[in-house]
Amino acid sequence: MTNARSERVAGVRALGQRAARLRTSRYVAEGPQSVREAVRYAAADVRDVYVTQQASSRWPEIVDAALDAGLYVHPTSTEALERMSADAQGVLAVLDLRASDLSALDLGRLRLVAVCEEVRDPGNAGTIIRAADAAGADAVVLTTGSVEVTSPKVVRSSAGSVFHLPVISGVGLADVVSTLRGAGLDVLAADGQGEHDIESTSLLDRPTAWIFGNEAHGLSDDARALADATVRVPLRGRAESLNVAMAATITLYASSLAHARSR
Amino acid sequence: MTNARSERVAGVRALGQRAARLRTSRYVAEGPQSVREAVRYAAADVRDVYVTQQASSRWPEIVDAALDAGLYVHPTSTEALERMSADAQGVLAVLDLRASDLSALDLGRLRLVAVCEEVRDPGNAGTIIRAADAAGADAVVLTTGSVEVTSPKVVRSSAGSVFHLPVISGVGLADVVSTLRGAGLDVLAADGQGEHDIESTSLLDRPTAWIFGNEAHGLSDDARALADATVRVPLRGRAESLNVAMAATITLYASSLAHARSR
Repeated sequence: MTNARSERVAGVRALGQRAARLRTSRYVAEGPQSVREAVRYAAADVRDVYVTQQASSRWPEIVDAALDAGLYVHPTSTEALERMSADAQGVLAVLDLRASDLSALDLGRLRLVAVCEEVRDPGNAGTIIRAADAAGADAVVLTTGSVEVTSPKVVRSSAGSVFHLPVISGVGLADVVSTLRGAGLDVLAADGQGEHDIESTSLLDRPTAWIFGNEAHGLSDDARALADATVRVPLRGRAESLNVAMAATITLYASSLAHARSR
Repeated sequence: MTNARSERVAGVRALGQRAARLRTSRYVAEGPQSVREAVRYAAADVRDVYVTQQASSRWPEIVDAALDAGLYVHPTSTEALERMSADAQGVLAVLDLRASDLSALDLGRLRLVAVCEEVRDPGNAGTIIRAADAAGADAVVLTTGSVEVTSPKVVRSSAGSVFHLPVISGVGLADVVSTLRGAGLDVLAADGQGEHDIESTSLLDRPTAWIFGNEAHGLSDDARALADATVRVPLRGRAESLNVAMAATITLYASSLAHARSR
């Protein structure tokens, strides 16, 4: 792959745009960390890996793992790869988009789930997915109206975590809550004005689904009504709030600690 | 202020660039949240407030507070304001840059300080300042080689927290550590491979300075050597790491909780 003007290069580049992702049902993972995790945990979805000579030398384990998994690895000129993506550092994978809904969850085994209600910023969504992964959560759900999980910036800011745990999208909040409650989870909503203080509540010991609200408007009235309880992270300085990714990081981590201690 | 082509508008716009900030010793706060907090907590540094008619109607309390503080409030056309900054939502303040060094700290009263070692990404630095504020920290230090605290994106992503607590920059790590240790603080370094698990250590009860490393290279060997101990946040899923802003959010919050409980 040396011709930066080829149709194939243009096709990969186009996957930076939502319309092309929808039309082709494909998306990209950019950069060594994302591609490494895609090859390791989602090889069945990977169609092609593109890599420059320099990146092959720098991260040979990625190429080896891709070849071991039987994937197509295309040596690619630096110029062609930079045209595919400005954020790939010489290595990029194209993946099949796999539709996933709530039926993908193993309902009998859920202990911790993060639910993003119309979270729109890709950096926030990616960070929440990474936080959920680090906390050992079983899944992340992005409700209808949230940013697409296949947006390149979501994939990138998740640091590969999108390939580590099920990320379900395009579901309404009421359906998510009813399914997760049916699976025996308590539903807690993270809310700066929440009724319970996360430090003094015993709510965290139980299997939990956390709802995190939109970054601009916060939690919706619907979410407050659907939740079993609203929980706040106390603020000790002059800050008026945490951003949604910070709040999710703290609450998911608090749940993972409570679960580890109650085991 | 109606002429978007005026020299004054160009001068404000230029403050988006580092060179102009250094030359003029001024910087900007953009958007209602930042300007509100600047007017409220750093009025002595505010030279001018620019506001569109629409923003005045939407956030009258900002204009009122600025006038009460005796500040110059300039009604500004939408066109001129958009030329000053694309991220201001109709309200912007120009501030004097006040040099601050370690002598600005009230050494006898420090209980929690965040030290960023060459943190370069403005979003990370701003988020760490916001996390430190929310945890009730006494100060943030950005060592030499870190992003400038007056970069517009740092100010914006701190959500006004840069005006809530002292943020000191341009100091070498060894000097910071020696000053803070002299003030009676333990020095803990956040490190994915740290020797102590944050969940099982009793290190957090004492007054603490946390060191957070560069986003790409992590903590330096110098930082590890200077710290009294390295502390890790346990990872329970498949994630290999947290980003520095997430790690800082969790560790600062854990310290604030430990301090509240030990009081």
